[in-house]
Amino acid sequence: MELWFMGTSAGMPIAERNVSSIVLSLTRTKGSLWMFDCGEGTQHQLLRTPLKLSRLTKLFITHLHGDHLFGLPGLLSSRSSLGGTASLDVYGPPGLREFLDAALRLSDTHLNYPFQVHELEAEGAVLDEDGYTVECALLDHRIACFGYRIAEKPRSGSLRVDVLTAAGVPPGPAYGKLKAGEDLRLEDGSVIRAADVLCDPIPGRVVAVMGDTRPCEGALRLAQGADVLVYEATFGADLAEKAEQYGHSTTLQAAETAKAANISRLLITHFSSRYGPDQLAELETQARGVFPQTDAAMELQAYPIPSPSFRTNLA
Amino acid sequence: MELWFMGTSAGMPIAERNVSSIVLSLTRTKGSLWMFDCGEGTQHQLLRTPLKLSRLTKLFITHLHGDHLFGLPGLLSSRSSLGGTASLDVYGPPGLREFLDAALRLSDTHLNYPFQVHELEAEGAVLDEDGYTVECALLDHRIACFGYRIAEKPRSGSLRVDVLTAAGVPPGPAYGKLKAGEDLRLEDGSVIRAADVLCDPIPGRVVAVMGDTRPCEGALRLAQGADVLVYEATFGADLAEKAEQYGHSTTLQAAETAKAANISRLLITHFSSRYGPDQLAELETQARGVFPQTDAAMELQAYPIPSPSFRTNLA
Repeated sequence: MELWFMGTSAGMPIAERNVSSIVLSLTRTKGSLWMFDCGEGTQHQLLRTPLKLSRLTKLFITHLHGDHLFGLPGLLSSRSSLGGTASLDVYGPPGLREFLDAALRLSDTHLNYPFQVHELEAEGAVLDEDGYTVECALLDHRIACFGYRIAEKPRSGSLRVDVLTAAGVPPGPAYGKLKAGEDLRLEDGSVIRAADVLCDPIPGRVVAVMGDTRPCEGALRLAQGADVLVYEATFGADLAEKAEQYGHSTTLQAAETAKAANISRLLITHFSSRYGPDQLAELETQARGVFPQTDAAMELQAYPIPSPSFRTNLA
Repeated sequence: MELWFMGTSAGMPIAERNVSSIVLSLTRTKGSLWMFDCGEGTQHQLLRTPLKLSRLTKLFITHLHGDHLFGLPGLLSSRSSLGGTASLDVYGPPGLREFLDAALRLSDTHLNYPFQVHELEAEGAVLDEDGYTVECALLDHRIACFGYRIAEKPRSGSLRVDVLTAAGVPPGPAYGKLKAGEDLRLEDGSVIRAADVLCDPIPGRVVAVMGDTRPCEGALRLAQGADVLVYEATFGADLAEKAEQYGHSTTLQAAETAKAANISRLLITHFSSRYGPDQLAELETQARGVFPQTDAAMELQAYPIPSPSFRTNLA
């Protein structure tokens, strides 16, 4: 599981940074890519990475501001031209369908793959499939804006082979049944309970990706206990008033959210175009004062999300 | 007067080329910029040039295919963020207004400048102001597509000072009246006719910018006698059937149009993504076989359009 930032600039591109888009590369679904937001030029950025547009299967839009949205019609079109045939699902706030309908119809764009828009009507479950769940919550921005919590489902724990060997159960189909949670009756009539020979389930990773927002309860809820939280830090600590006015957060507010939500790692992004590339280290330092496990996201760089197996409670 | 190519790739961007957009930098209106088409990522390309988005005053869209259009909402928005306050006019085929209305409204984008969309209903005059005229004609593509002919208005010729001196007319207000075309009555009752002391008007430059098209009468008409013709060469000479099928031209067809229209210089562009950067020289060579004054347009490079004063018919 890896996160890639296609763009980390707020509002508009600058020479060194593009507008918002994040890709989550998944391990459980054969390298599928999920994308969060799609600012203009996202498809251009993808060309500079090893990520293939044809592997994109789901797209989540946080809100309809142009710097998170205007790359979407071109990306959908190029995915078709590049031979993408797998079905694509796009999730986002109401209005997303009208935007895409207008853009694709008026430009006479025909996609060579099944394509569905899912407008989010409420907070809660977005999807539950292929080993993952996604839920959303409303954030606090100038227009309707969603955050997303992506959770790998827990995997069943490993079998305690030492216990089974001692009980005289050789490897075979019985192991599969126990692994699936079925109890096993032996020839002598005794019963081996699956619960007694299964280690604890291995928890899945949790990634929380926020859209633009002031600090808010929705973000805190989605971020709770996440392995990685992606949260905006449009402004430095000295511009809290501006952040409040425009519906954004400062570096300190990002870090405070991370701390309150008890997460493992914070990646801040969506930096105002006023900050040149030399100033991101200062933003990072501000956030680290509150939450040390913070990095200012760098574009076109992979952020691996470690497997949580080390947290497994082995018997 | 200079032409800049922001993108020369057809259909979608590749690592080395962006999708269509051309900028014409004008001399008569204090460095105003006019843009022809605005594919996704055009604003990003502008950041790599000395051209300022705030100087953009007119935008002409040839047709609504995404690779000529999808950069427009983001570019309009960034022009506002970058402090552009001058009025902006956008010209293009019907449907352009609906696209921009939807994109700007749904993204809650507010522009800090007066902004007008002019949908072209017919061939003919598009505008006549500030020393320039623009006319359009329908081309032959898969959807409605316009070409544009931009003409500097002729400047009045210089005064024949030698003749005036011989006639005893000293420099002064009389020169201004003669230059403006008024005849001059001298104190002895004789008349100096303006026509007799004015050199021929200095013709203006003509730039013809085509959209996507098969060879057609409209393109030939707009290109007639142009100083520079920008014409698409999506395909090499061997792919004439594909060009016909998709409504495009080959290198040879571009060159034949240039030759038939008796132009001075041909710039070919809109190369299929199948052609890597090493193959453009071959496309150029094909076209030069028919029309030697051809160049394959290079992105982010200025093409000056020389003043035509050398063509002035001095008495």
